[in-house]
Amino acid sequence: MDIKKLAAEVKDYVIELRREFHMYPEKSGEEIRTSRRVKEELDKMGILNINAGGTGIIATIKGEKPGKTVALRADMDALEVSEKNNKPYKSKNEGLMHACGHDGHTAMLLGVAKILSEIKSELPGTVKLIFQPAEEVAQGALRMIDDGAMDGVDNIFGMHLWSGLPTGKVSVEAGPRMAAVDVFDITVQGKGGHGSAPHEGVDAVVVASNIVMALQTIVSREFTPLEPLVVTVGKLVAGTRFNVLASEAKLEGTNRYFNPKTKDVLPQAIERIAKQVAAGYRAEAYVNYKFATSPVINDPESSSLAAKAAEKIVGRDGLVEYEKVMGGEDFAEYLKLAPGVFALVGIGNEKKGTNYPHHNPNFDLDEDVLEIGVALYLQYALDYLNQN
Amino acid sequence: MDIKKLAAEVKDYVIELRREFHMYPEKSGEEIRTSRRVKEELDKMGILNINAGGTGIIATIKGEKPGKTVALRADMDALEVSEKNNKPYKSKNEGLMHACGHDGHTAMLLGVAKILSEIKSELPGTVKLIFQPAEEVAQGALRMIDDGAMDGVDNIFGMHLWSGLPTGKVSVEAGPRMAAVDVFDITVQGKGGHGSAPHEGVDAVVVASNIVMALQTIVSREFTPLEPLVVTVGKLVAGTRFNVLASEAKLEGTNRYFNPKTKDVLPQAIERIAKQVAAGYRAEAYVNYKFATSPVINDPESSSLAAKAAEKIVGRDGLVEYEKVMGGEDFAEYLKLAPGVFALVGIGNEKKGTNYPHHNPNFDLDEDVLEIGVALYLQYALDYLNQN
Amino acid sequence: MDIKKLAAEVKDYVIELRREFHMYPEKSGEEIRTSRRVKEELDKMGILNINAGGTGIIATIKGEKPGKTVALRADMDALEVSEKNNKPYKSKNEGLMHACGHDGHTAMLLGVAKILSEIKSELPGTVKLIFQPAEEVAQGALRMIDDGAMDGVDNIFGMHLWSGLPTGKVSVEAGPRMAAVDVFDITVQGKGGHGSAPHEGVDAVVVASNIVMALQTIVSREFTPLEPLVVTVGKLVAGTRFNVLASEAKLEGTNRYFNPKTKDVLPQAIERIAKQVAAGYRAEAYVNYKFATSPVINDPESSSLAAKAAEKIVGRDGLVEYEKVMGGEDFAEYLKLAPGVFALVGIGNEKKGTNYPHHNPNFDLDEDVLEIGVALYLQYALDYLNQN
Amino acid sequence: MDIKKLAAEVKDYVIELRREFHMYPEKSGEEIRTSRRVKEELDKMGILNINAGGTGIIATIKGEKPGKTVALRADMDALEVSEKNNKPYKSKNEGLMHACGHDGHTAMLLGVAKILSEIKSELPGTVKLIFQPAEEVAQGALRMIDDGAMDGVDNIFGMHLWSGLPTGKVSVEAGPRMAAVDVFDITVQGKGGHGSAPHEGVDAVVVASNIVMALQTIVSREFTPLEPLVVTVGKLVAGTRFNVLASEAKLEGTNRYFNPKTKDVLPQAIERIAKQVAAGYRAEAYVNYKFATSPVINDPESSSLAAKAAEKIVGRDGLVEYEKVMGGEDFAEYLKLAPGVFALVGIGNEKKGTNYPHHNPNFDLDEDVLEIGVALYLQYALDYLNQN
Repeated sequence: MDIKKLAAEVKDYVIELRREFHMYPEKSGEEIRTSRRVKEELDKMGILNINAGGTGIIATIKGEKPGKTVALRADMDALEVSEKNNKPYKSKNEGLMHACGHDGHTAMLLGVAKILSEIKSELPGTVKLIFQPAEEVAQGALRMIDDGAMDGVDNIFGMHLWSGLPTGKVSVEAGPRMAAVDVFDITVQGKGGHGSAPHEGVDAVVVASNIVMALQTIVSREFTPLEPLVVTVGKLVAGTRFNVLASEAKLEGTNRYFNPKTKDVLPQAIERIAKQVAAGYRAEAYVNYKFATSPVINDPESSSLAAKAAEKIVGRDGLVEYEKVMGGEDFAEYLKLAPGVFALVGIGNEKKGTNYPHHNPNFDLDEDVLEIGVALYLQYALDYLNQN
Repeated sequence: MDIKKLAAEVKDYVIELRREFHMYPEKSGEEIRTSRRVKEELDKMGILNINAGGTGIIATIKGEKPGKTVALRADMDALEVSEKNNKPYKSKNEGLMHACGHDGHTAMLLGVAKILSEIKSELPGTVKLIFQPAEEVAQGALRMIDDGAMDGVDNIFGMHLWSGLPTGKVSVEAGPRMAAVDVFDITVQGKGGHGSAPHEGVDAVVVASNIVMALQTIVSREFTPLEPLVVTVGKLVAGTRFNVLASEAKLEGTNRYFNPKTKDVLPQAIERIAKQVAAGYRAEAYVNYKFATSPVINDPESSSLAAKAAEKIVGRDGLVEYEKVMGGEDFAEYLKLAPGVFALVGIGNEKKGTNYPHHNPNFDLDEDVLEIGVALYLQYALDYLNQN
Repeated sequence: MDIKKLAAEVKDYVIELRREFHMYPEKSGEEIRTSRRVKEELDKMGILNINAGGTGIIATIKGEKPGKTVALRADMDALEVSEKNNKPYKSKNEGLMHACGHDGHTAMLLGVAKILSEIKSELPGTVKLIFQPAEEVAQGALRMIDDGAMDGVDNIFGMHLWSGLPTGKVSVEAGPRMAAVDVFDITVQGKGGHGSAPHEGVDAVVVASNIVMALQTIVSREFTPLEPLVVTVGKLVAGTRFNVLASEAKLEGTNRYFNPKTKDVLPQAIERIAKQVAAGYRAEAYVNYKFATSPVINDPESSSLAAKAAEKIVGRDGLVEYEKVMGGEDFAEYLKLAPGVFALVGIGNEKKGTNYPHHNPNFDLDEDVLEIGVALYLQYALDYLNQN
Repeated sequence: MDIKKLAAEVKDYVIELRREFHMYPEKSGEEIRTSRRVKEELDKMGILNINAGGTGIIATIKGEKPGKTVALRADMDALEVSEKNNKPYKSKNEGLMHACGHDGHTAMLLGVAKILSEIKSELPGTVKLIFQPAEEVAQGALRMIDDGAMDGVDNIFGMHLWSGLPTGKVSVEAGPRMAAVDVFDITVQGKGGHGSAPHEGVDAVVVASNIVMALQTIVSREFTPLEPLVVTVGKLVAGTRFNVLASEAKLEGTNRYFNPKTKDVLPQAIERIAKQVAAGYRAEAYVNYKFATSPVINDPESSSLAAKAAEKIVGRDGLVEYEKVMGGEDFAEYLKLAPGVFALVGIGNEKKGTNYPHHNPNFDLDEDVLEIGVALYLQYALDYLNQN
């Protein structure tokens, strides 16, 4: 089967769909139009599909030969960003934009569906297509799983179009690839009063400031330098007025890491520092801590399989090593239930202006990637099913 | 002349007025009803008065004997506080309250006017009554002065009813009595980015926190321990979202001190710390600094005069020493133009519940003070004019 | 009695003695030669004297008329400073110097003794002369008291020659005049290890640094700005080698204040900050806290008496107000047992080069002060005894 | 050639030598006895050797067949540690100990020499043996290079016996393996004075403390979380006495990292923080910065070669992955001049008590490693020469 040729044949279809999705971006969990269009296309192809996870869709292509089940996943949600590009397919939903490439993911997976629907007779097993909502808020994967997305799945493959890699390059390394994302907030309770009488209160501005300084040492002193770790306080709001002693401060932040064991000790470190430093100033600190996303950890065998598949599509030179990504991906949830791999697929092309960072209002895809992505999804799925 | 008797005779009049003012509190600079009522009363007394400083009034009682001119001042504005008392004369203007005693000041000064209008023939000089607006925002005194309040004035006397002193106690010490009030804000300009990639930006949360910690040393290390100084950052807002690196932080604060020379060096200290610490982190800091109120510094001779006047009204035991007040008063502006004294006059009475802190929603006056205050205003004015 | 004349008559005697004491400075508690010379002089005068407090001397001149007992005090110890002056009477004890004026104090009090021994018949009461050792280490006063220096004493007067005041000026204000001196040290116990593996230890350098920063807020936020307070960490030693994680840090410091109540809460504040901040970093902190010297608080009545006495000696212009001194004086111990006053007596004369700060290797006295000081001691004692 | 058999034959010889070296540990740069013994043994074997790098030795075994030149390196110096073991071969030089395994390195390389001297006829090229002094102080490698150690060398192999790995395990990964070691010190110049008058000076204790806190953000905020970095201030000394304001502080520290580009920006970051933060407090900071050791970066091809060699000696299971080491090794200097590899060779055996950390007074080798190490040196050298 000439997979690159099959992918080339659906190229225009995929580009057209991608542009349509790009014009109608939708918020996380509100992918109503996108979901409807995915369903319409799948219905046209005669592919069995069910609604799942709110606005998600699970499509199943059962091959005519017996075999295992491999899942392919695309995410569908957009971002609250106002597009600055002036392409004909510019976002028509003001304040929303596909600034992360999910339009491409969804379109490619529909291209894959189209091909699979035509080669069903040769398929030794089943391919499940997971069109997931709400990735950006780390909720879609769990909802899809709740609704059965991973039932019977033996292996899963996902990808992210990636502006940090040039078009034609693919990275599928084993091990940790995208970070755990934890979210925390700290409330410092001091004691208000007049700004001219600090001694009658407990100044939450000072307490919060010292907590911020002390939190820096979690990374610099408390955890091994050999494993990446980020502790960021992104927002700090303390006090209400220039001449009133701040009675309260609120810090909101996020932590990133790859080693799953970190989650067993990091929350305690945050809490210990916040509470003890606060106590040093006669204040109190309360910490909320949430594990939002687990690290994406590629299975070594699946990674090898994906490397071979990628070489078939982009050649030996196309397969590259790429640094770990401190951003999170709820694809991690699927990998807890089955081995698999998450690939980064390059879209960077300086001449075309497709190398802006993700989430940037000038972000755009190099549409040459769409054919590559379709082929890679397909190759991985077929290689997996054929080997088993 | 039996001043205490004269004051006793206007007691009911003053209480009634005070309660009326209390029921209709008005914002700083918007004392329209209060101003109208003051004018009506002065007109009834046949006292020459002119509008000044927006909603202020200057009344002039020229004695029939020649002499100097002494000014007496009362402020008229209320606060944005919702009254919690349930007295019959509770505020009828929701969200506004005379929680600082200015209703009493204004009523007392009208009581003084009434008496003066009746003893004009015995008056060796002129008394100017300054009914000032907008004290709480440190703007009224300057506006009154612009409109001539201090023209020809040789000496000035003001007072503040004070819940920290028991009713019947008066403090008129020489020297610094209320603090200079400076106001500053610092903008820290870092560089935003994703919270997972701190190294690609400059984290304004951290920079602001270090600036807060470093600012503490202005008081603890940089200025003499022998002179009171407060540097308060009342409000700190940095960043926008838990997972976005803060690109900007804003600190707002106030400084208090009594030594007028401090204003020549303190702004530079704030600016030096903010800018250099920021530079240490590759950030920039911009400082706005404003001298809002000068320190109230009582003239020693006027203070002696006031002490003698007070002894006549409240007796030797009534004259007390009281600590300096770190709050500001724009009465300071008048004292730059003529010697004079600012008195604190006790209203604290635990049984009556009149010992709540100023600006508290439960604040109230012990109305027994009104007669004392009237007498003190009068005694000071007469003693001043008679001595010259 | 013409006290100024009597003082003038002993002037040369006192200067000669002062220069002798200056040439043979002795360490605190080791004032052996000085003590012997004081005794010799007292013996020559026929004044009853006893050894006390180690190297101290108590002399008693009982007047021939009945009356109360007033004590006059001088301290005798020198400093571990190498003199840089090149006067004929330069220190002959290398590394030791009378750089604080105690040589003058002792010489003046011997001058006083000489006069008193001659006017005994007119003395309505008793004068006790306290020649105290070990003032610089805050131990002498307590030792003298233990040995009876204050037994039967009704009032006490002491003075310090003061380079911050011009010669001929005297300050005897009531209230707090010299600060309480507390001494503390903090030991931070972290956990050592290799400097390349911070996560395997607890870095005491970082913990100590945060404690230092947090201690600044005791002055800036925790205690009233209206009362002077100093918290100084004078010495910080942490770690042993650039590439070894510091297991321990030691901070040594001193606190100064005037309000005696501060001692009830300040140690706890130091301890709370040290322990809690350390706990925030998984370290431990141990605090030693010692009250070395109490504040010198002049009794108001004695202060009035001293003011009148001073006016007789230096005239109305010579009596000045002078700021409180953040240094300590164990004269405070005597004032706990009897009312009295501690005077500052000016020696500053720029032309003579006698305005160097105390403890400076170029410190010197304006010897014109010696006659003034003798007169002041005497005047105070006689005025006190005569009034009672 | 049966290399494992050859190695087994010299086992006793190597153990004996290792114990001898262990008994006579010598300081870095003073390896006089060790050097003499190495020379004696080489002379006995008839191997050409020259003195180099002070107390180092370069031995050359030229094979009888033509070929390339491969170098093998052992280091010889001991540590200033007092041995706590009670083995018969305990250190006889009090205060010195082979607590890092260099005794084993040297003994093994002599074992290798012995074998090579016997198989010279079969050797297709040249083997240079580098017996290096002064590794612990990062000076020996440069001295050996200056004296020609790397002249004509095409590839180099070194190893470190490693207690963190079990005996029989070997790690030879490509890329960065041991860290760059930078050394810095910061002098903070404040202004001294009396501890009771902080405002008259500039407190170097506070400045140094803030610099320490700010330095933490180099790791936590300024450099990528994806690359290991350590910034340690190991020693901080500020001030001289509890009651004297510190005029000076001295910080001494070390930085560790693997990315060679870090050296282009890290010194500036340290200097910027130190100088700007100091300026915020009116102090000055001076920074000395020295690049002590470069990172050890294994050449990928040499690493593959070493992996294959290691598999022949310790089997597939013996070849393991091991984390990077934040300690430094001046083997890095050789790798700047020729490709090569630095191996970690396990000696950890809990039952034998040979798993103490390096530099610990209880450190010891599992002597079973010596035969393995000899074989590995030999296998690498022969495989390298044979492939070329």
